Amino acid sequence: MSVDEVAPHRRGRPPTLKDVASMAGVSIATASKALNNRQHVGAATRQRVQSAADALNFSPNALAQGMVAQRSGTVGLLTSDLVGRFSMPVLRGAEDAFGSEKMSVLLADARDDHIRQQHHLRALLSRRVDGLIVVGAQPDPRPSLGQDLGVPVVYAYAPSDDPQDMSVVADDVAGGRLAVDHLIRCGRRTIAHVTGDPTYGASHDRARGAVERLAEEGLTLAGGEVMYDSWSEAWGRGATRLLLDREPALDAVFAGSDQIARGVLDALLEAGKRVPEEVAVIGFDNWEVLATGSRPPLTTIDPALENLGRVAALRLASAIEGRAGHGVESYPCRLVTRSSTAPLH
Amino acid sequence: MSVDEVAPHRRGRPPTLKDVASMAGVSIATASKALNNRQHVGAATRQRVQSAADALNFSPNALAQGMVAQRSGTVGLLTSDLVGRFSMPVLRGAEDAFGSEKMSVLLADARDDHIRQQHHLRALLSRRVDGLIVVGAQPDPRPSLGQDLGVPVVYAYAPSDDPQDMSVVADDVAGGRLAVDHLIRCGRRTIAHVTGDPTYGASHDRARGAVERLAEEGLTLAGGEVMYDSWSEAWGRGATRLLLDREPALDAVFAGSDQIARGVLDALLEAGKRVPEEVAVIGFDNWEVLATGSRPPLTTIDPALENLGRVAALRLASAIEGRAGHGVESYPCRLVTRSSTAPLH
Repeated sequence: MSVDEVAPHRRGRPPTLKDVASMAGVSIATASKALNNRQHVGAATRQRVQSAADALNFSPNALAQGMVAQRSGTVGLLTSDLVGRFSMPVLRGAEDAFGSEKMSVLLADARDDHIRQQHHLRALLSRRVDGLIVVGAQPDPRPSLGQDLGVPVVYAYAPSDDPQDMSVVADDVAGGRLAVDHLIRCGRRTIAHVTGDPTYGASHDRARGAVERLAEEGLTLAGGEVMYDSWSEAWGRGATRLLLDREPALDAVFAGSDQIARGVLDALLEAGKRVPEEVAVIGFDNWEVLATGSRPPLTTIDPALENLGRVAALRLASAIEGRAGHGVESYPCRLVTRSSTAPLH
Repeated sequence: MSVDEVAPHRRGRPPTLKDVASMAGVSIATASKALNNRQHVGAATRQRVQSAADALNFSPNALAQGMVAQRSGTVGLLTSDLVGRFSMPVLRGAEDAFGSEKMSVLLADARDDHIRQQHHLRALLSRRVDGLIVVGAQPDPRPSLGQDLGVPVVYAYAPSDDPQDMSVVADDVAGGRLAVDHLIRCGRRTIAHVTGDPTYGASHDRARGAVERLAEEGLTLAGGEVMYDSWSEAWGRGATRLLLDREPALDAVFAGSDQIARGVLDALLEAGKRVPEEVAVIGFDNWEVLATGSRPPLTTIDPALENLGRVAALRLASAIEGRAGHGVESYPCRLVTRSSTAPLH
């Protein structure tokens, strides 16, 4: 009997631990232990439970499930991200990890304003949230909220500046490396890097990954250096005009953001360069409204924010159960290919 | 002195706490404390804030203040807006109206998925929210959640399809009228309208406002008709190429969204038309990442979503106190001028 045949009556509600236990023929407690890799579960049982979970497409958040029994079932998400560009995907990922019926997310918008943040913090704590996820407006380290809040905190996207805290972030170095790796696989050799504000650590991290990957091929950056300025289309256009002067053989640009990449594309188009035939362009962010509307649609590096939200929720659930983590965990970005890159013929 | 000279930024919206804070030269939090007679605000500051509130005719929201005393102090915001583009400004406006220390907003992301919406609804109600604000992913009417939830509901941005419900929406007809009025004031006479999906009521409403305002000048649409297709840059480009063929004297385009406007600008640039000298372009949405990065930066109609959030919060506060409203209330859009429109010389 296939999963398709079994599953239709369950369509629309996620499988529960009970479903898994029932399919594996074990108690709920045993299923929970098996999925959480606790001791006192034999290897065969563990395997049977895992197979049932896989067949049912069960995404274990036993942590959150256990947790919710004694808790308010509410997590606060404190964001400084005005347009929701970064916080909404993190929120979605966290909701997916917890399960909406088990945990609600109270979102509060601190607007990068310290006083407002303190207000929101008090308001969230007075509502007895079980924990907090803090999402920054940009990926650089942000001040810790301290260790005395009485509930666990996980920082997502922007790490805390206190190594005692737990932070989950996108791996910008690996993201920069991934971008250049893709361009090299497309046969490009004269690769420039146009990026944003040099006061952002993320600019330097992405650039470092790019330069390291180039060095492995015996290459250096076209234009001679990383071109830092601002996270804007205007800078993408300006930088590209400079580059075309300096590097007539330019065959690829790695832009540090999709906004910059849009400017790069426009300037190349104006200079009569064909993208991707003559010059390939890759961005960073996978901001869909920018990346899908461009000519041609933009290949870009996606920082996988939903995954960050999911991991942040799991780490928070562990911390609520008394197993707090520390330090900064980096998670991979992923390559999203559209039409602005292609192999050289 | 005309209203235009005094208060261009306030046209069509009541003063907010932010306006008061800005006029008094203090933070929003301080203005809030001063108006609520909290401690830790100096007498001089309190006086300055009160004077600003008086000058602006700002009425602090006694409803929300009174309401919260006997309630959970939590409002649910149920959104289907994947990127947060529409829900985040509504959330901010609602927070401003309530005051973050008095009311928290539980945000739940329904992702346009009926089953997920039902889950979230149960989750929110089980957390005893005092009321719900429902934000649609697009401005067309959406199915009512019904009258049996046990808490009041206000629909924002997208109205409910049940006239028993209370909805607050942007006035798309007036928005279309405002766009064309601005173009006419810039001396334009050959004005086309390129817009999105014809199955959206908002497309037709914006077009109707535009056509009505043209008719007052004895004008009709350049190109002979509203050009409907999709909310995309690609359609903006395609439509503009068609228009330049049909209407060599084209001197203005009203685009039904900022995405479309970006395409219009690109196609005009490619055709060698100078914007705004030869052709003026106005968009709709004031989606900043699109409107500020374009060449030239885009004049556009802002649907004033923060104000919708503020009004939704006030209506919800009334309903929670037992004075529920019904029907659809429309609120003005506002004109945001940048460089893509200018008077003809």
